[in-house]
Amino acid sequence: MADRLVPPDPAFAERVRASFARQGAMQTLGATLAELAPGRAVIALPWQQSLTQQHGFLHAGMVAAALDSACGYAASTLMPADAGVLTIEYKINLLAPAAGQRFRMEGAVLKPGRTITVSEGRAFAIDNGSEKLVATMTATLMTITGRENIRH
Amino acid sequence: MADRLVPPDPAFAERVRASFARQGAMQTLGATLAELAPGRAVIALPWQQSLTQQHGFLHAGMVAAALDSACGYAASTLMPADAGVLTIEYKINLLAPAAGQRFRMEGAVLKPGRTITVSEGRAFAIDNGSEKLVATMTATLMTITGRENIRH
Amino acid sequence: MADRLVPPDPAFAERVRASFARQGAMQTLGATLAELAPGRAVIALPWQQSLTQQHGFLHAGMVAAALDSACGYAASTLMPADAGVLTIEYKINLLAPAAGQRFRMEGAVLKPGRTITVSEGRAFAIDNGSEKLVATMTATLMTITGRENIRH
Amino acid sequence: MADRLVPPDPAFAERVRASFARQGAMQTLGATLAELAPGRAVIALPWQQSLTQQHGFLHAGMVAAALDSACGYAASTLMPADAGVLTIEYKINLLAPAAGQRFRMEGAVLKPGRTITVSEGRAFAIDNGSEKLVATMTATLMTITGRENIRH
Repeated sequence: MADRLVPPDPAFAERVRASFARQGAMQTLGATLAELAPGRAVIALPWQQSLTQQHGFLHAGMVAAALDSACGYAASTLMPADAGVLTIEYKINLLAPAAGQRFRMEGAVLKPGRTITVSEGRAFAIDNGSEKLVATMTATLMTITGRENIRH
Repeated sequence: MADRLVPPDPAFAERVRASFARQGAMQTLGATLAELAPGRAVIALPWQQSLTQQHGFLHAGMVAAALDSACGYAASTLMPADAGVLTIEYKINLLAPAAGQRFRMEGAVLKPGRTITVSEGRAFAIDNGSEKLVATMTATLMTITGRENIRH
Repeated sequence: MADRLVPPDPAFAERVRASFARQGAMQTLGATLAELAPGRAVIALPWQQSLTQQHGFLHAGMVAAALDSACGYAASTLMPADAGVLTIEYKINLLAPAAGQRFRMEGAVLKPGRTITVSEGRAFAIDNGSEKLVATMTATLMTITGRENIRH
Repeated sequence: MADRLVPPDPAFAERVRASFARQGAMQTLGATLAELAPGRAVIALPWQQSLTQQHGFLHAGMVAAALDSACGYAASTLMPADAGVLTIEYKINLLAPAAGQRFRMEGAVLKPGRTITVSEGRAFAIDNGSEKLVATMTATLMTITGRENIRH
C-alpha cells in the first residue's frame, strides 16, 4: 500500500459520502459506505434477488459495480476538494461464485498520483458467518479538475 | 473474429434465452437480448435513474454488468447443451462517459475453445440518435460441465 | 477504430523511428518497424532461440514486449512533437502458443485523447506461410509533456 | 494469499528449476530464480542496456516478461508432476519508471485451482540501495495435463 496518504482535502469524508448518496446505482445495489479512511473505502451490501445471475449468486457485474466504486472512492479520498474521479479501466478476476448473504468490497490505493491513481479491490462473500475472497480488482482512475460536469 | 463458429448445440438460442430470463440482474438493468447468433450476443437497455453514477451517466459497473453478460452469452452459444459458462476474468476500458437514452452491448467470440473462450465486447451509447463507442471489454470464459449447480 | 486521426506533428514518422532506434529492447527482439501510419504501428520480428519459453515457442513476455511497443508507437503517432508516451497498463490474452518463424504485432489506436489514449494490439504468428492470431492486447497510454527525461 | 498450499509434487523445486533453465528468454533477461516456495517464486535480474526502452529504463515488456514468469512459476509449484502451465492472460499496471541497477519480481498464488490458478506479481526496482514498487500484475494460468508438447 502507498505510504503518502495525507488527504489534501480535510473534508474528504463528507465529500465522498455526498457523492455516494447521489449514485442511483449504489441505491439499486442496496450498498452502504461501511468504512472510509485516507486511501481506503469499504462498501457493504446484502444479497438481493434483483442482483443475481442465473444460478442465484450475486451477478459478477454487480460484484464489479460495487468493487469499482470502492476502488474509485478510495482514490477520491486523496484527491483535491474540487476534483472529480473517473475510472479509466479496471480488471477483475472472479475467484469463486459470489454465494452469501452479505458482501464486503474493499478498495485501497496502491499508488496515488496527481493525474493517475491505481487502486486494488477485494470482494468478500459472507456465507453463514464464514468469509471468502470471491474477486480481486485492479483499477486505474483519473483525477479530473476544472470540468463542471465531472465533480465528486 | 473466429472462423469455426458452428454451435454444437442446435438449440443454443432457446438455452441462452432461458438463462437470460433467470437473471435477476438483467431485469434490474431493464436489459433485453436484442440479437443472438453463433458466437455473438447483443444486449440492449434504456437509461434509468437507478443505474446512474453521481453525474447521471450510466454507472460504469452497470455498463460492465451488461457487457460481461453479452460476452458470456456470445461464448455460451458455442458451448454444448449441458454446459455452463463462468466468467474467469474481464478487463474493461471506459472510453467516454456513458451518456445517452439507450445502450447497446455487443459481445463476440474472438477465440472459442473446449475449456477457455475469449470474447470481446463493445458498449455503445445512443444519445439523441447518434451512437458512440463508450467502452471495450476482453473477457475470459470457462466451459463448465458435470456440475449441477453451474448450468446455462 | 477512431475517426479523428490527423497527427498534430507532421514529422511523426521520423520522431517515432528515432525513438524506436534508441530502444535496446527492440534490438534484443530483432524487431523492425514494418509499418507506420497515423494511429497505427506494425512491428515485425523473427523467431530466435534467445526469446523462447521452455517449449521453444516465443515467450509470452516477448510477445507482450513487442505488442506493447506497437500499441505505444501507434499512440505516439498522434501526439505532439514534444510529447513522450508512457504505458500506464496493458492486458494481454494469449490465445494460442506463439509457434512460428516470424511474428507480426499490430497496434492501432481505438480512442485517442489529450491525456489518455487507448490502443489495441493483435499478435500474429507466421508458421510455414500460414498466419494465426496468437494474442490480443488492450493498452492505456499517457501523453507526457514538459518532462525532459520522458520524451519520445 | 491462499491457505491450501501443499504442493502435490514433492519435487516441485527441481521441476521448476529445470523448466527455468530451458527458457531462452530468461537467459536473455539475465534472470535467476532467487526464491522458490509453495505458491511463491521470486526472479531477480540486473539492468542491461539490451533490455531498455528509449529513456534507458528497463522496458515495460521486459518487466512484464520476468513478472509473468514469476507468476507462472509460483503457480507451477502447486501443480502435479506431469502438468504444464500456460498463461491465459495477464494484466500489468506500470506504477513508476523501472529505474534501477537491479530488479526483483515476486509472484504469489492468490487462488490455486485444479484447472485455473490466479497469481499476483509485484515488480521492485532497486536503485542505489532503495527499493521501489514499479509494477503490479494479475495473471490467470491454466494447468495442462496429457499434452506432450506442453510440459513443465
